[in-house]
Amino acid sequence: MAYSTEKKLGILGGGQLGRMLIQAAIDFDIYIKAIDPDPSAPCKFIAHEFVNGDFKDYKTVMSFAEDCDVITIEIENVNLEALEDLEKQGKKVFPQPAILRKIKDKRIQKQFYADNQLPTAGFELTDNKDAVQKSSFELPFVNKLGEGGYDGRGVQLIRTNDDFQKAFEEPSLVEQMVDFEKELAVVVARSESGEITTFPVVEMVFHPEANLVEYLFAPAKINEELTQKATSLAKQTAECFGIVGLLAVEMFLTKNGEILINEVAPRPHNSGHHTLKANLVSQFEQHLRAILDLPLGDTSAVGPSAMVNLLGEEGHTGPANYEGMEDVLGLPGVHPFLYGKAITKPFRKMGHITVVDADFDKLKEKVNFVKQTLKVTSKNA
Amino acid sequence: MAYSTEKKLGILGGGQLGRMLIQAAIDFDIYIKAIDPDPSAPCKFIAHEFVNGDFKDYKTVMSFAEDCDVITIEIENVNLEALEDLEKQGKKVFPQPAILRKIKDKRIQKQFYADNQLPTAGFELTDNKDAVQKSSFELPFVNKLGEGGYDGRGVQLIRTNDDFQKAFEEPSLVEQMVDFEKELAVVVARSESGEITTFPVVEMVFHPEANLVEYLFAPAKINEELTQKATSLAKQTAECFGIVGLLAVEMFLTKNGEILINEVAPRPHNSGHHTLKANLVSQFEQHLRAILDLPLGDTSAVGPSAMVNLLGEEGHTGPANYEGMEDVLGLPGVHPFLYGKAITKPFRKMGHITVVDADFDKLKEKVNFVKQTLKVTSKNA
Repeated sequence: MAYSTEKKLGILGGGQLGRMLIQAAIDFDIYIKAIDPDPSAPCKFIAHEFVNGDFKDYKTVMSFAEDCDVITIEIENVNLEALEDLEKQGKKVFPQPAILRKIKDKRIQKQFYADNQLPTAGFELTDNKDAVQKSSFELPFVNKLGEGGYDGRGVQLIRTNDDFQKAFEEPSLVEQMVDFEKELAVVVARSESGEITTFPVVEMVFHPEANLVEYLFAPAKINEELTQKATSLAKQTAECFGIVGLLAVEMFLTKNGEILINEVAPRPHNSGHHTLKANLVSQFEQHLRAILDLPLGDTSAVGPSAMVNLLGEEGHTGPANYEGMEDVLGLPGVHPFLYGKAITKPFRKMGHITVVDADFDKLKEKVNFVKQTLKVTSKNA
Repeated sequence: MAYSTEKKLGILGGGQLGRMLIQAAIDFDIYIKAIDPDPSAPCKFIAHEFVNGDFKDYKTVMSFAEDCDVITIEIENVNLEALEDLEKQGKKVFPQPAILRKIKDKRIQKQFYADNQLPTAGFELTDNKDAVQKSSFELPFVNKLGEGGYDGRGVQLIRTNDDFQKAFEEPSLVEQMVDFEKELAVVVARSESGEITTFPVVEMVFHPEANLVEYLFAPAKINEELTQKATSLAKQTAECFGIVGLLAVEMFLTKNGEILINEVAPRPHNSGHHTLKANLVSQFEQHLRAILDLPLGDTSAVGPSAMVNLLGEEGHTGPANYEGMEDVLGLPGVHPFLYGKAITKPFRKMGHITVVDADFDKLKEKVNFVKQTLKVTSKNA
């Protein structure tokens, strides 16, 4: 596709990922239309057009997309039938709906890895609670809902026989526990022409309770061989899917040096948020370039970096207040990305902080300072 | 001022400088209101509120600013009486109106440098055409209009006796021609608390006809001593003014190694556009931090960089078309900033391109490629 500012890009979803995608699109002067059921969604003020509507509804999506040239998503849980029909009508829909179907159901996703010899933790498909109990795996193991999970919901640990009570009755899968050393991620971009790039491997640290990324470092502290291995596995995964757009590939590095795919996200992802400041091109700009079939950007890092998620404090619900922000802004190489959400809730993703520092120890110190200092509270708490 | 997302920032002017300021404000979740007489100004779609109105009109500015906590400008040519009255009412107005008055009239500006022993080219104040002719300076010299000049308009060269015919009849000044080696610039930021930072010195190359910056490099190719000299002169100038916000200081490096102030701009400036990609903090974010009295950011460069202005091609007026954009996007480390102007005109600033490359020769090659390849034309030409 030749570069044109006359194309209209429709985004299903108006959350922070859409917001940062629009921020990238502003530089390219791309006309953006976004849709979200939340009338004060993060995209509301910066989209050229904001539609307050339900992206899970067939008719709403069809009518939303009517005047769009390219359609993309910032959340997977959208009406796939509509996307499939739009694609049949000849609209550019990226990522492709067929890939969204494969990823949406964790059972199909896992089977896809197995079918394509992509390394992943051992699993069995379980049609109901009873099948979970009859699994050949030894306890403890993981039980994952096929469809409908998000940010840790729909994933649970089965430790003891008592836990079988909470096993999913809906179609799910059981997965062997991975004794991992680190959790890694690579964001891959593939354009319509098939050009492919990867961002440097990141190392993620999860919040123990919220099951959300708490912070990450880039590049991951792993040797060159493992870096290559993770990078080429991520690339291979994107190529197997044949995706157009971004694919974030989350991986486990096991204690014996294996790299296993954990799961993928076919869109900008939390594991690429540091790229907004730490790389010559950001994941958001790269997604735009990929789906508009423009040449992909240079993913080189400007230096070691980190990203800290700003989650709403426990016990605080109401108008958000960013306590300690001035102190954090006093650190060199620190930049805030607030998502424009008026209301904070426990563990709600309210923003993130990027840190760039050539010295890895200073980087860690700054991350710790940010984590200890900056709190999203509510005045009405 | 403590960090708060509840403050409302009003910007007089809705052009590209305001647009990039808003882009920085999005990350800070600052509420922005902008005003411009052009109903389709670059800020229109991304400001929380856009007022289509005349920022030169006293009443319009007073009513626009009524619900704003902080007021700033992105163009100097605004109603200063209104800004002065708003300041008297206790509003934060940055840069301060008194400084805008000093800078607006080039005669007062030059006298200010002389009074403060800030080095600048020799000058004489001339009240009319006749006084220009009677100047003690030898031809050729420069004749600058006191008020009303912009982007090269209001500045002319008096080469021969015949040129005295076109000398300004309005209050103006005459200035000795500077035999300069390079044109340099330093963007300084000073916060309300008096914290001060400078961006690395840049070297500007002007378009021979349009009298606009055609491209620039950072850091300037000058020795450490001259770098220090330019940096400290810029800092000293900002301190003499006592400005809160950005001050771009344009300087001449003469052939005998002197550094002279050419002129200043009390706002984000073309000579800082590369900082959007080339520095840990951009000039726009730094301006926000300064006027909101937040700690200033780290101005360190991520590497050598360049910026090429995208000017409308001569002979083209109408809907803009960015010819060659795909080829330019294929270069590593290149990023476009388009200003969202629907209509191109000869020499209109339509956007700019930043280039980051660790190798200075490659940087120059890329700049040349961008200049030769990317053309803003009109389909209706």
